[in-house]
Amino acid sequence: MASNFAYLNTRDFEFIAQEWLPTEIVFAYEDFADYYSKDDVKSILEPFRKMVKEIIEPSNEDGNANPCSFANGKVTTPPTFGPLFHKLQQDGWGTANIGFGEDALTMPQFLFAFCTEMLAAGNPAFMPYIGLTTGSAELIEAFASEELKEKFLPKMMDGTWAGTMCLTEATAGSDVGDILSKAYPTDVPGVYKIKGSKIFITGGDNDFTENIIHLYLARVEGAREGTSGISLFIVPKYWVEDDGTLTDNDVQCTGIEHKMGQFGSATASLAMGENNNCRAYLIGDPPGEDGKAKGMAQMFQCMNFARLGTGLLGLACSANAVYNARDYTKERIQGRPLTDMKGPRVPIIQHPDIRRTLLNGKALVEVMRAMIMKTFFMFDIRAKDPDPEKRQAANDFIEIVTPMTKAYPTDEVWNLCCEAIQAYGGYGFCEEYPVSQIARDCKIYSIWEGTNYIQSLDYIGRKWTMKKGSVYAKWYAEVKAFADANKNAAGFEKEFEKFGKAVDALAELQSAIIGFMGAGKIDMMPLYSRRILTASSIVYGAWCILEQAMIAQKRAEEVGPEHYDYEFYTGKVYSARYYLYNVVPQVWTIADIVKEGDASALEIPAGAFDY
Amino acid sequence: MASNFAYLNTRDFEFIAQEWLPTEIVFAYEDFADYYSKDDVKSILEPFRKMVKEIIEPSNEDGNANPCSFANGKVTTPPTFGPLFHKLQQDGWGTANIGFGEDALTMPQFLFAFCTEMLAAGNPAFMPYIGLTTGSAELIEAFASEELKEKFLPKMMDGTWAGTMCLTEATAGSDVGDILSKAYPTDVPGVYKIKGSKIFITGGDNDFTENIIHLYLARVEGAREGTSGISLFIVPKYWVEDDGTLTDNDVQCTGIEHKMGQFGSATASLAMGENNNCRAYLIGDPPGEDGKAKGMAQMFQCMNFARLGTGLLGLACSANAVYNARDYTKERIQGRPLTDMKGPRVPIIQHPDIRRTLLNGKALVEVMRAMIMKTFFMFDIRAKDPDPEKRQAANDFIEIVTPMTKAYPTDEVWNLCCEAIQAYGGYGFCEEYPVSQIARDCKIYSIWEGTNYIQSLDYIGRKWTMKKGSVYAKWYAEVKAFADANKNAAGFEKEFEKFGKAVDALAELQSAIIGFMGAGKIDMMPLYSRRILTASSIVYGAWCILEQAMIAQKRAEEVGPEHYDYEFYTGKVYSARYYLYNVVPQVWTIADIVKEGDASALEIPAGAFDY
Repeated sequence: MASNFAYLNTRDFEFIAQEWLPTEIVFAYEDFADYYSKDDVKSILEPFRKMVKEIIEPSNEDGNANPCSFANGKVTTPPTFGPLFHKLQQDGWGTANIGFGEDALTMPQFLFAFCTEMLAAGNPAFMPYIGLTTGSAELIEAFASEELKEKFLPKMMDGTWAGTMCLTEATAGSDVGDILSKAYPTDVPGVYKIKGSKIFITGGDNDFTENIIHLYLARVEGAREGTSGISLFIVPKYWVEDDGTLTDNDVQCTGIEHKMGQFGSATASLAMGENNNCRAYLIGDPPGEDGKAKGMAQMFQCMNFARLGTGLLGLACSANAVYNARDYTKERIQGRPLTDMKGPRVPIIQHPDIRRTLLNGKALVEVMRAMIMKTFFMFDIRAKDPDPEKRQAANDFIEIVTPMTKAYPTDEVWNLCCEAIQAYGGYGFCEEYPVSQIARDCKIYSIWEGTNYIQSLDYIGRKWTMKKGSVYAKWYAEVKAFADANKNAAGFEKEFEKFGKAVDALAELQSAIIGFMGAGKIDMMPLYSRRILTASSIVYGAWCILEQAMIAQKRAEEVGPEHYDYEFYTGKVYSARYYLYNVVPQVWTIADIVKEGDASALEIPAGAFDY
Repeated sequence: MASNFAYLNTRDFEFIAQEWLPTEIVFAYEDFADYYSKDDVKSILEPFRKMVKEIIEPSNEDGNANPCSFANGKVTTPPTFGPLFHKLQQDGWGTANIGFGEDALTMPQFLFAFCTEMLAAGNPAFMPYIGLTTGSAELIEAFASEELKEKFLPKMMDGTWAGTMCLTEATAGSDVGDILSKAYPTDVPGVYKIKGSKIFITGGDNDFTENIIHLYLARVEGAREGTSGISLFIVPKYWVEDDGTLTDNDVQCTGIEHKMGQFGSATASLAMGENNNCRAYLIGDPPGEDGKAKGMAQMFQCMNFARLGTGLLGLACSANAVYNARDYTKERIQGRPLTDMKGPRVPIIQHPDIRRTLLNGKALVEVMRAMIMKTFFMFDIRAKDPDPEKRQAANDFIEIVTPMTKAYPTDEVWNLCCEAIQAYGGYGFCEEYPVSQIARDCKIYSIWEGTNYIQSLDYIGRKWTMKKGSVYAKWYAEVKAFADANKNAAGFEKEFEKFGKAVDALAELQSAIIGFMGAGKIDMMPLYSRRILTASSIVYGAWCILEQAMIAQKRAEEVGPEHYDYEFYTGKVYSARYYLYNVVPQVWTIADIVKEGDASALEIPAGAFDY
């Protein structure tokens, strides 16, 4: 594969950080003020982009050529992955950024997210080793005792050890409350014995870290059934003795999945306590007398971030697929314009359908990136702003948009890969070119961290109703105010006409669902929830891209056509225009469909599916 | 993989042949009357379905486990493929059915298409070996001299030899007029020497037939540039001497592609005449004094059929993905209904979003199958009807719908595979389950036999304008008449309201394009052509499924709820209802978008794509 990582520059990131979002607020926070300012964005990102091209890109090919394998209870990863893991962790581009310890890099989340997007685009299968280590370290940081933090975090952060999240079991996926893993108290307070098995554990085993720290959901003997009885444990692959030596902890890797993509990522099955000697540390308190445990609540506190991170992976694959297709269509000579059929053959980027493909890709990537990066920015405010009201407002915003930022990019990436493959013609189907791999790699994102159906239930079932609906109402009011305030925005009148129609359609969607629920038609909600989440995501995305386009339009006028940035700015305006004209109409189409309330899928007898 | 071929029965085929299409017309034709009748459909199809399950399904797993490989100039195919090829050809389920020779099976095309759909579903990567042999034999049958027919056809039809179609070259894919392959006359009339190379030749080499008969596009020295100067040749891998012995013909396989799917199908690069000794038979006459040649016209005569056949492959993969997902969701226990959250866990087929997934799949499969099988039925009429007017009418119908039947199923199969994977959850991403393979296999269909963009240009550029637009006008009038005649069809009033709106939208789409062309905005046509083809396809599909549903509704009432067929009939009505309520609204959304005429993708400066 000649090339894979096709990011040419970091201009859109710079626009987000320096021209769109009021990031000066974040850069002014105490933790950042001495280290970074708004002016540093390009000088951080551009070297990072080059590093990805030089160091990460080759590992992607390695992962495809040398997939993870399993033999004799051990996983072998692609040869480049271990050194890469150690390098990134030691350089502070991974887990260290969570901000524990004095040497932590502690960038703003949104800035770190730009880097993570590029990292993931460079090698989607490598990324989870770092992402899961970070996620598990964050849980320890948030909820474990100081003693446990000291025991585990330093070595997780410097790359000596890795981490995982162990939720899924063979009979309990989306339905995590039904896990069978059990924990039994021992004579040592806080130490339990674990018995159970897990599947689909990303990075569940590797051959490049001395130890693996599994964050593990299990039910303490006697605790409640369902999610409320689940506790969270630290289950190290090797037990860490007080002197730091590592001894066996009865954790076995029993196999890895043979997957359609992500070949370099080991998706492991684990068996804990087969010899009745798997020890674990409980995080936080044991279940109360009522049998209630805190594991799920602890896990959920980090869930929004993990879901947003999954959206980021979908975005990364989308962008890289679109950028690769762009580069190919600039070079591939084929066919003549309809307006000059006797003339010379042209690069296919000149054909209208290819331009549509590329602008569709560009617009969607910019929309998704805007949605996601604005949300990371809100994480920064929530984490660091001195004003509790602002933290609360940021938190509320995050709650509403998280399911959108998870589901929309991870749904759309499949279509964007399809279009990218199509732009390559027959070569798109060949593994010598990069886009077929991106298509194979990306499909897991719509499933993990809660399937996109689970996201849609979360959105309507929990987010719409949160605090009696006031959280959503506030978010919607903000969208509506933006639509109303800009009705006559010069040059964007038609765009805002469409936006206003979409915003109204969202209100109709909510009324329709409330109507169904009121009439006792409960199942109409899950029947339409995915489409409603899509419609809401498009509105959020349109809001972001319109804000960006209005800024860009102004800048384009200011700098004039000869300026090197003029094409970037006009391109941004076209992204918004394309999105409003060609994508946003889906919103009212969905609203019309939901209002009609067809219930065929609920009414059809199950036996009819056999034909 | 436990199972792959998930067709449970052939009920929908029977409905098409026995209850929907007036197939008695075809069964009455002289070629069929003594062999088949409408009553035989099930007795042909059901054993065939079982044969696919028993014999074809295992070869699919073989193809995945033992992909085609290339070494020392030779291709090795999966071990089961050769025996299977010989068996199917000898049993008459392949090339023999084209009707050459006295022992030919010569079923009606639509009936044979039912079998082919199941065959392709059973092993998508195996199917092309037979399909290409058939396609090349058909070209020989249609255009070659009796001598050449006798030389090549018997051994192609009994499976001793295979055939291919050699169009694409490294620099000429969609743009076949730009091929570089050359042909030079020899002293033997009709025999030429070929020099050139081809890529993406499906079945371009194999290890299970004695010879491979390549149908090869090349330009005779001195002929015109472009498509009009191209001739069609028979280039045997081994030259067939008059006594039947095979000698070297300077045809080399130079490699095979490493593809994202279709592992068992050898996609070969071929070099002809590297040693200046590759001989070929010209099919038909040499180029005239004006340099015009007939190769493209010959190729095009079989093109509609090949395109329809590609749609059939997309349908087969769609159906099998949907059926596999259905079977899985019946068995997978996970989660509780929202209406009974304290109750027991249920098979996921009971969850509303899964039911939506399954009904969406069922409806689309039935729609696509109806579109395709009606078109095959028209092929039978065109080929065999004694009345030239009926043959002409069938031909006209075929011309209009062919690009729809090629593009729509091969676009939709990607989405349907996505939904099927989603229904499996994490297992959908694992190769131990069948749907990820179907997703990987299917992606080529939207590209080969003319990309779906090429189909859309053919549809608007050639089919709309054919015979001054009268061919399309007749087709449209038929759709419109159906819409008007059934406005008040009892039980389908809402469905026909939507259908009528979609039919009107088609007219608006055409007006919009005519308007753009009239205003000199030529590029608006290719900018919107794919979406217009999609809209047209949906209308054609809705027409078919509504016809079917009205019949089914009546039958359901006749047989009553206790009858074993009642669920099939009501299921059919639900398919139509779902399609009209949930899919057809796309048509007017597309019309609204096209009428607005956003030209962002044409206007945006190419440099803006670099950001």
